[in-house]
Amino acid sequence: MASLSDVMSQHPNPVQMLRNSRMGIYVYPVVAPEFTNWRDEQRAWRDSAVLFDQSHHMDELIVEGPDAEAFLAHVGINGFANFDTNRAKHFVPVTPNGHVVGDMIIFRERDDKFILVGRAPTANWTKFQAAIGKWKVRLHHDPRSPSRPDGERVLRTHYRYQIQGPDAPKIFEKINGGPIPEVPFFHVDRINVGSRRVQALRHGMAGAPGLEIWGPYADKHYIESTILQAARDLKIDIHQVGSRAYSTNTLESGWIPSPLPGIYTGDGMLAEYRDWLGADSYEANGTIGGSFVSENIDDYYVNPFELGYGFYIGWKKDDFVGKAALEKMKGASSNRKKVTFEWNKEDVLKVIASGFEDGTPYKWIDFPQPNYASSSADMVMQDDKMVGMSMFNGYSYNERCVLSLGVVDQSVEVGDVLTMRWGEPEETQKTSGEKHKQAEIRVRVSPTPYSREARENYGGGWRKTTA
Amino acid sequence: MASLSDVMSQHPNPVQMLRNSRMGIYVYPVVAPEFTNWRDEQRAWRDSAVLFDQSHHMDELIVEGPDAEAFLAHVGINGFANFDTNRAKHFVPVTPNGHVVGDMIIFRERDDKFILVGRAPTANWTKFQAAIGKWKVRLHHDPRSPSRPDGERVLRTHYRYQIQGPDAPKIFEKINGGPIPEVPFFHVDRINVGSRRVQALRHGMAGAPGLEIWGPYADKHYIESTILQAARDLKIDIHQVGSRAYSTNTLESGWIPSPLPGIYTGDGMLAEYRDWLGADSYEANGTIGGSFVSENIDDYYVNPFELGYGFYIGWKKDDFVGKAALEKMKGASSNRKKVTFEWNKEDVLKVIASGFEDGTPYKWIDFPQPNYASSSADMVMQDDKMVGMSMFNGYSYNERCVLSLGVVDQSVEVGDVLTMRWGEPEETQKTSGEKHKQAEIRVRVSPTPYSREARENYGGGWRKTTA
Repeated sequence: MASLSDVMSQHPNPVQMLRNSRMGIYVYPVVAPEFTNWRDEQRAWRDSAVLFDQSHHMDELIVEGPDAEAFLAHVGINGFANFDTNRAKHFVPVTPNGHVVGDMIIFRERDDKFILVGRAPTANWTKFQAAIGKWKVRLHHDPRSPSRPDGERVLRTHYRYQIQGPDAPKIFEKINGGPIPEVPFFHVDRINVGSRRVQALRHGMAGAPGLEIWGPYADKHYIESTILQAARDLKIDIHQVGSRAYSTNTLESGWIPSPLPGIYTGDGMLAEYRDWLGADSYEANGTIGGSFVSENIDDYYVNPFELGYGFYIGWKKDDFVGKAALEKMKGASSNRKKVTFEWNKEDVLKVIASGFEDGTPYKWIDFPQPNYASSSADMVMQDDKMVGMSMFNGYSYNERCVLSLGVVDQSVEVGDVLTMRWGEPEETQKTSGEKHKQAEIRVRVSPTPYSREARENYGGGWRKTTA
Repeated sequence: MASLSDVMSQHPNPVQMLRNSRMGIYVYPVVAPEFTNWRDEQRAWRDSAVLFDQSHHMDELIVEGPDAEAFLAHVGINGFANFDTNRAKHFVPVTPNGHVVGDMIIFRERDDKFILVGRAPTANWTKFQAAIGKWKVRLHHDPRSPSRPDGERVLRTHYRYQIQGPDAPKIFEKINGGPIPEVPFFHVDRINVGSRRVQALRHGMAGAPGLEIWGPYADKHYIESTILQAARDLKIDIHQVGSRAYSTNTLESGWIPSPLPGIYTGDGMLAEYRDWLGADSYEANGTIGGSFVSENIDDYYVNPFELGYGFYIGWKKDDFVGKAALEKMKGASSNRKKVTFEWNKEDVLKVIASGFEDGTPYKWIDFPQPNYASSSADMVMQDDKMVGMSMFNGYSYNERCVLSLGVVDQSVEVGDVLTMRWGEPEETQKTSGEKHKQAEIRVRVSPTPYSREARENYGGGWRKTTA
């Protein structure tokens, strides 16, 4: 089997294919599970400072060449007008039908060179667009690190770190050897890390201001040591964040990392894409998990308006992939909106308690990261009607509750208490979940981002624009 | 600071030193946290088959030379009379005061060559005995793999796997290309794994029969692939066990991996040992965690009778380190006995519930492995009297409860309900635990091993001899 199309032809429908994939848990690889302990690692991004090692869990795609800008403006929905080398963007491509393919952070390193960082679907889609078009671009794809390296060495093109938290600015000044430039949100400048001059993006994944820095992978240990030593010298309680806590930071800041790429249906370019995509791709091997089972995989797709990305759209661009579809979707009453679901404590404890009883328990809620698929889809009900979909889960020690991110119908209001069906209705072949029965968990609809700090102090951007 | 003595001189007493060590969680390194999910990985050692990758978490010490046997018989308490090359033993050294230093599994590979596998304290103590004696032995020490390799390559001298579970025998026959020899418990023979001829120990850590095999590390991937392919061909639901589930298998089988080495006090040889041991040793950096805080570190020590190792003792040997002390300890009414503590479900849920409330929660019970120190010591109370010490914790999905292993006074009976103090009374510098308050958890005293299968079908050995 060479292509995604070949794999799909072996299954009654793509939902069944992905619900029964045996790929396993979507792993945050290489980085140690815990450095101190995941509770303190979560607490530190709110209270002191954290170092996120993001060197391993994301694909990196370098797009270079005289047509690089025009090509990427064609692939992504984003406006490119103000995109100079001191900026980054949240790059979002959609299909010709307007469904989100995925997203990556895109950096402009030179006029003719861009670096994209994120999950595989956007990298794959971008490579495909280069393959079928006539763009003068050179692409280099560095896929994420292996999920279970088992003692083998892992190398990447770049190291990538984030320093976050209220004490982070003191560390920046120390490693830079003096005050750092005032960089607006999602802008890039250069700072010193000891003897190295590195690019730094003003970012803030965990709801507190921070910087993302990157450079040649060979510098990784030097950079890490310099940052940690600076924190020690300043007596800052910095925590390196391990893979168990890492993915939960988004629950507080409100980005959904895992929309299902809207590429399994559709004719024309989409059919061609499925023939082009390898049988070993993320798209052919990823998993859908959760209580929502539809015969129609389109029901799992989301559009950019639903994720709060509508204001990115470069309407002034002559054309880009999906523009016509988005024009129709814009303002549609069927568009859902992004929210945070706050899980009811008693219901969560009921689920946990079943792990202490004989018989088939409820689906285990693993702490701090209960996700058991690369894309989660749990039904959120109002009485007997499905009014939303929960898409990414996690326990926050800071908020002392389990949260999830997802989308709800326009009719749903912040403060509404809905019911989420937790666990799968059928037994699947997935290896990431034990045999279980379904539970009902009440969820309170809350704004996104959930974190008060993020909500109030964020420098503009998509996190503010929803619900 | 060069030695353990130097490090100890910086602290008011060794208990405070170890309770405040910042070494972090005692990690099961390199092996992926989960391959499928830890619930199914636990279930599989009871229901089908598992592959434990034990290549990384243990020190290995090779002892060779004309005096190898005499030397080891001097260092360990074990009888060596019947120790030929087709046997393994559970090697236990004690101090001159009769306190357990640690334990390793010892294999006799040749008449003059032994391999010891286990935690560092026994390897260190054995090296010291060689250093201070006049034995014609050559030692090679291969310490455990780094806790957080961070993408760097890890190499060991040997790979080491166990295949366990009710379906394991079918796999043995398949990889061997025919029926395997009948090997008695803790005896060694040779079997084929595909094209390789390997040593195999009849073992059974998880309460079900199994084999442990080892060989040159370069063969690791071949061996693993051959085993997994055999299981696939046989349609056996084999699970590779990840580092999160791995350490919990001992809760069902009853071995305590983590007694505190009894080496921090005592004169003569023990004082000399502390000067000899490095400041970077396990002993200088390990952690004590738990509710039991004594000024006197001797209160954390155990003797071999308490762990059920009394029947190993080679009384007929002319002498061995600690013999005189053990002679006095034998049959003493102050010797405690090893038991399993079954934690009360409601009390466990109360602790978990506090993670959903504001304020300082109870000490988090992390699933499936709540240990937060290299040696755990939680007080077990009968009314106001401490009658036992809980020493190693874990949740068993098979038994649907949290269990711990420890020792209790002779007066305690199976079935007694005692109260464990969970969490530390004081704030320590340990990095592995968040700020917390103490909880009381009722525990029911249960036999060791707890697992019915292990209790009834074990082929003799220390697991049967306690409580």
